[in-house]
Amino acid sequence: MTDGNELRNLGEFGLIDRIAQRLPAGAGVALGIGDDAAAFAPAPGQLNLITTDMLVEGIHFDLSYSDPLSLGKKALSVNLSDIAAMGGKPRHYLLSLAIPPAITLDFLDNLISGMLSRAEQFGVHLIGGDTCSSSGPLVLNLTVLGEQSPDMLVRRSGARPGDQICVTGTVGDSALGLRLLRQGGRKGDAIARHLDPLPRVREGLALAEAAIPSSMIDLSDGLLADLGHILDLSAVGARIYSEELPLSDTFRKHFPLVTEEALSLALAGGEDYELLFTAPPEKIPQIFPLLEKMGTPVSVIGTITEENTRAVIGSDGKEISLDRKGYDHFSGRDKS
Amino acid sequence: MTDGNELRNLGEFGLIDRIAQRLPAGAGVALGIGDDAAAFAPAPGQLNLITTDMLVEGIHFDLSYSDPLSLGKKALSVNLSDIAAMGGKPRHYLLSLAIPPAITLDFLDNLISGMLSRAEQFGVHLIGGDTCSSSGPLVLNLTVLGEQSPDMLVRRSGARPGDQICVTGTVGDSALGLRLLRQGGRKGDAIARHLDPLPRVREGLALAEAAIPSSMIDLSDGLLADLGHILDLSAVGARIYSEELPLSDTFRKHFPLVTEEALSLALAGGEDYELLFTAPPEKIPQIFPLLEKMGTPVSVIGTITEENTRAVIGSDGKEISLDRKGYDHFSGRDKS
Repeated sequence: MTDGNELRNLGEFGLIDRIAQRLPAGAGVALGIGDDAAAFAPAPGQLNLITTDMLVEGIHFDLSYSDPLSLGKKALSVNLSDIAAMGGKPRHYLLSLAIPPAITLDFLDNLISGMLSRAEQFGVHLIGGDTCSSSGPLVLNLTVLGEQSPDMLVRRSGARPGDQICVTGTVGDSALGLRLLRQGGRKGDAIARHLDPLPRVREGLALAEAAIPSSMIDLSDGLLADLGHILDLSAVGARIYSEELPLSDTFRKHFPLVTEEALSLALAGGEDYELLFTAPPEKIPQIFPLLEKMGTPVSVIGTITEENTRAVIGSDGKEISLDRKGYDHFSGRDKS
Repeated sequence: MTDGNELRNLGEFGLIDRIAQRLPAGAGVALGIGDDAAAFAPAPGQLNLITTDMLVEGIHFDLSYSDPLSLGKKALSVNLSDIAAMGGKPRHYLLSLAIPPAITLDFLDNLISGMLSRAEQFGVHLIGGDTCSSSGPLVLNLTVLGEQSPDMLVRRSGARPGDQICVTGTVGDSALGLRLLRQGGRKGDAIARHLDPLPRVREGLALAEAAIPSSMIDLSDGLLADLGHILDLSAVGARIYSEELPLSDTFRKHFPLVTEEALSLALAGGEDYELLFTAPPEKIPQIFPLLEKMGTPVSVIGTITEENTRAVIGSDGKEISLDRKGYDHFSGRDKS
């Protein structure tokens, strides 16, 4: 066991050295950690992709139930998920850390272990960052770089009327997991999904390289909110069929009947980090074999419509009212 | 006047929209704000440069004397300074913000105004970021991207015995300004230098493109600490002549005699954001006309030595003892 004192003795440069010594060799970068800036180049003809996310203790995670290993993995995963949603190949990342006095060196070592193991899994390399102390919560800021050729890049703005709306994996598990954690739960599939989501990097890349999606986004804010971004930027509408929503066995065990509460978790829960994408009907048959090869389920859950209206259709064929909080963004500007 | 309530009503997407609407057109980027990731490409043959810095309220700035306009400028400046220290051309930036409830919309608008004006001054464009709430201090994380050709890049590791040690502008003003702020001062040159330092982007680029510096770093942690990084990475030593340290008129007004206290501010004060670089003696004559053209003073303050010892020589020709806090890194690992 170590305490905050040991970390203070180490200092900023000591901490950076400690992290640098753990990095694998051959980061595929012109200049890595240790200078004023890092230097790197995309492969010829590729665009650079970049995304950044800030995670704040007490807002995005709670140290009473987030272990440092999972937190390190998740911090990288949520950014990798953004590169995946562009159909990109992740390559490098930067880490900024603001560290409050109560954080121990053990905690930080485990956080870095989680990050490095997730980085190895997806072939990305730490090339820079910043560490400082915090007068309040623990704050992490991750910046992830990737690349893709300009013609393969999948944007949010390409959805067209008649396109089918697809989603990988299952939805609602992370929100269910968060609820169980807050109720004192510490184990189980839903909790694991919340604490350590796996980004769909391989799936996003395979879909992009097969030129299947007309638009794509990752599920971070909730299915309807994230679909709302695609609809806004593509200037189209959507019909979602609640019966087609992919729900895990764990989710169904908690909700044998798809109650309004269950629907709310699945449609507005957030943090599933699945890929939501649209594709023209003629490309739908290609999707299943492509993703099943990776062991990843995929579901068609709705259709893009020409008129800018947004509806979720229930099992009775009737539209479900979406005037509850969390659906606001989906319901569109005309209704707000 | 607005209050925190107005900002809460705006929400994350509203705030991002509000910032996006203020961005100048033609950011020179393949894909800017509004998708899962931004996309950009360096000019042919150029490497990408990237640097990141986190600024935490209560650690890096104090809202009792930092106005939001200056804070926005400074947050970008300290990152531009890192690109300058590589001899790079800054091009794009990303902004992450964790916002506590007490921050008003007015404050944020001014913060963004400061950032955008500094961005315009140096030709850089905001291409992405993240905003969230904070349970504690205001936190900013800036990531700045630049570019330079591989043969022009100036690293920290290139200092050679016999090289002269040079510094732009003056040193110690920012530390003096911080001291005056903490004593209740609110005006004056030193305080302005602390609250709104100007990065030496043009100078760094001109020096790099004239192939003058053998190594370069920007002054953020203090002259001796930052020189220490160059010495460590170049495996050389240094002799600094205290009489050659460039001190501003303001600084000399506060310290008519260069006391131990004055020397401590100049050598270990930090946050001057000047460029410290080494160059072979035959290139020294080129430096003065190059930087004077820009109105930027430059001084030769010492020499790189072969043996790995580090010394500051006083006006009496004798070595000044450096066993005080703040000089630790300069004094080298062999002495620690």
